[in-house]
Amino acid sequence: MKKILIHLESDAKASVFDQITAYDAGVDQVIAYGGVQVEEVPNLVYGAMFTRGGEGLRHSAIFIGGTHVPAAERLMKKVLDTFFGDVRVSVMFDANGSNTTAAALVRKITQGRDLKDKKALVLAGTGPVGIRGAILLAREGCEVLLSSRQLSRAQEVSEHILEHHGIPVTPVEIATQEDVSQALSQGIHIAACCGAPGVRVLDQKTWSTAPALEIIADINAVNPLGVEGMKVTDNGKEREGKIFYGAIAIGNFKMKVHRAAVQALFQSNHQVLDFSSIYELARNMEE
Amino acid sequence: MKKILIHLESDAKASVFDQITAYDAGVDQVIAYGGVQVEEVPNLVYGAMFTRGGEGLRHSAIFIGGTHVPAAERLMKKVLDTFFGDVRVSVMFDANGSNTTAAALVRKITQGRDLKDKKALVLAGTGPVGIRGAILLAREGCEVLLSSRQLSRAQEVSEHILEHHGIPVTPVEIATQEDVSQALSQGIHIAACCGAPGVRVLDQKTWSTAPALEIIADINAVNPLGVEGMKVTDNGKEREGKIFYGAIAIGNFKMKVHRAAVQALFQSNHQVLDFSSIYELARNMEE
Amino acid sequence: MKKILIHLESDAKASVFDQITAYDAGVDQVIAYGGVQVEEVPNLVYGAMFTRGGEGLRHSAIFIGGTHVPAAERLMKKVLDTFFGDVRVSVMFDANGSNTTAAALVRKITQGRDLKDKKALVLAGTGPVGIRGAILLAREGCEVLLSSRQLSRAQEVSEHILEHHGIPVTPVEIATQEDVSQALSQGIHIAACCGAPGVRVLDQKTWSTAPALEIIADINAVNPLGVEGMKVTDNGKEREGKIFYGAIAIGNFKMKVHRAAVQALFQSNHQVLDFSSIYELARNMEE
Repeated sequence: MKKILIHLESDAKASVFDQITAYDAGVDQVIAYGGVQVEEVPNLVYGAMFTRGGEGLRHSAIFIGGTHVPAAERLMKKVLDTFFGDVRVSVMFDANGSNTTAAALVRKITQGRDLKDKKALVLAGTGPVGIRGAILLAREGCEVLLSSRQLSRAQEVSEHILEHHGIPVTPVEIATQEDVSQALSQGIHIAACCGAPGVRVLDQKTWSTAPALEIIADINAVNPLGVEGMKVTDNGKEREGKIFYGAIAIGNFKMKVHRAAVQALFQSNHQVLDFSSIYELARNMEE
Repeated sequence: MKKILIHLESDAKASVFDQITAYDAGVDQVIAYGGVQVEEVPNLVYGAMFTRGGEGLRHSAIFIGGTHVPAAERLMKKVLDTFFGDVRVSVMFDANGSNTTAAALVRKITQGRDLKDKKALVLAGTGPVGIRGAILLAREGCEVLLSSRQLSRAQEVSEHILEHHGIPVTPVEIATQEDVSQALSQGIHIAACCGAPGVRVLDQKTWSTAPALEIIADINAVNPLGVEGMKVTDNGKEREGKIFYGAIAIGNFKMKVHRAAVQALFQSNHQVLDFSSIYELARNMEE
Repeated sequence: MKKILIHLESDAKASVFDQITAYDAGVDQVIAYGGVQVEEVPNLVYGAMFTRGGEGLRHSAIFIGGTHVPAAERLMKKVLDTFFGDVRVSVMFDANGSNTTAAALVRKITQGRDLKDKKALVLAGTGPVGIRGAILLAREGCEVLLSSRQLSRAQEVSEHILEHHGIPVTPVEIATQEDVSQALSQGIHIAACCGAPGVRVLDQKTWSTAPALEIIADINAVNPLGVEGMKVTDNGKEREGKIFYGAIAIGNFKMKVHRAAVQALFQSNHQVLDFSSIYELARNMEE
């Protein structure tokens, strides 16, 4: 029985990236839909629920992608609401690569280290990867600060995280390198940079003069990178006593996590691979 | 040479159900199109006609699906009009599952029985499955009555059946359980319930007091079922002397018929699998 | 690793023809998009660029199709602009079959012959196949005339060819059979007929009285054919001392060229299969 992955997203054209990755993970056939409206979801999901009974159900699965994360979350909710009882298939959520990227980012930061009582700053952390990264770092034992150029935006995200995940995160307004310096000087050990492609968020002078800072990671692969003096291929490289993880090192691991998660979908028919379970997968993977 | 199925339908998103079923029937690749307009059909069909000559032609086939049956019939007509001579591929029509469901429904009712001189009532029979079921029951030798809540609608459908298939069907107005009782009291042996999902069309008191009634079948799988006291899994179950066929028993057989029909498509390049030929297939299948 | 072909075109429905041909060429999976806008191209191309590194890159490729050639050329340009450095995949352009048809047409005309100093007339040559055919014939050593019913249109195309390909082509206005006769009487050896389906461009009286004329080829497969007295299956058939190549003989070879070009895509990650390279392929193929 072929392993079939139903790919749903709200963008007009279903992602080439996710489809190729699915095939590379061993999926036999992707059935991909772009421009999916919430009200179209039930009929598509019924097609996965009612074609293969019992043992067969685990050979169909659903992937929620797309660049627009809130729209994808609405699709995800509708998918889960459409199932009933055991008549369901496994689902993976990775809109804009947010779950696999956050999992890879935090896995790089934690690897072989105990993060208990460490302080982490998620810089430019109000996007999907930043939010997920903050939660995962907190669960690993860190005290987490999350920054935005606007305090109100950081507060909004922090409240959302507290409300939905029960995790306290401290909002910080960071608009300038002086703001970064001041934040880092509060004993920050980890800087997880989640800025947009091509946007510098951390200057060399700033990180090199932050005494407590141990680890710097960045998900921005487009020049200028998020961190001055970093290379995208840095994979645990030491510079002035700090450990660096660049966007390609994180991205390469993200690809492995992505493929492993897709493979996991077909092990049973009742998995929901959201950021927590994808991170669990990443945690248990050899690099 | 890969077995390729071109799936065409007028709904915006091509059916997941039909695509998975095609793969489970052994199709190597489905090329699926939703939102197909009649005027787009020729170009798509040419692609099937002109890529693989001679013996190769039978490795491509066309499936017409979608929830809107009249729109699907227009696509079907255009597909058939586009072929010329032997330059054609096999085509299967199963919009809204109508042909395979009707075939499975009637096959359940007939199995091992002689329906000559039986009287059958197709309840709520003006939908695609009801119409096809009425024709198939008549061909099996039944005298057929077909009901609607509005007499005019039942008459319209009966006239359509007479005109296009040369089969006389008696239209009946049935709006209440008293109407059902009265209809059943005319010596009806078979009640084929084709109501919409979640709509009760036959109460227990009504069927249990119909003396001639022998067989009750129902295609509604959503509670409340079409027939009170029935179970969706009833597969020849006897209750108060009547034989019951529920929606899941019919549906499971429908899946087999669907797969068998898709497989049959690739045996030659000139088949038109509409409800008659799909029923012939179903008739010759082991259950 | 699966050979994946990303099919992009501006027509609403991605071509069945191109997809089936891709599978017959050994592609494992086509991921097809119709209705592609230029601004949607980068994201789709990134999906091919960033999923499979190094050696893996050559297992993904891009095909540009669609019936509207100028729109396809804009997509092609955007695809090539999106690559950077070695991070690229191979691309084939064959909108409306123009490149493979022109290659097959000219390959038929040249086969085993030396075209140095021959004079060729591309009749009704302002469409995509005519333009490409004119360039290829010129490169084979012919002096080329290209006709249109309107001189201005022929001039426009000739200027385009000179400007973009550095090849001089003589524009001719041909509206009647007398015009054809007059053109042929200028020592034309080759008539390549590129008229629209169902449009006669060359009468028997005209070609039979053209003394220098040696070879007549026609890409119109729909009656009336482009050349009176020709058969679509003519494949080097001699009639009144002239050699004929009909649309099906050319079309059959076009299919082989098309498949060979698709196969070539996966040999490395940096090929651009446009009409020149596709013709090179065709030139080296056994018929």
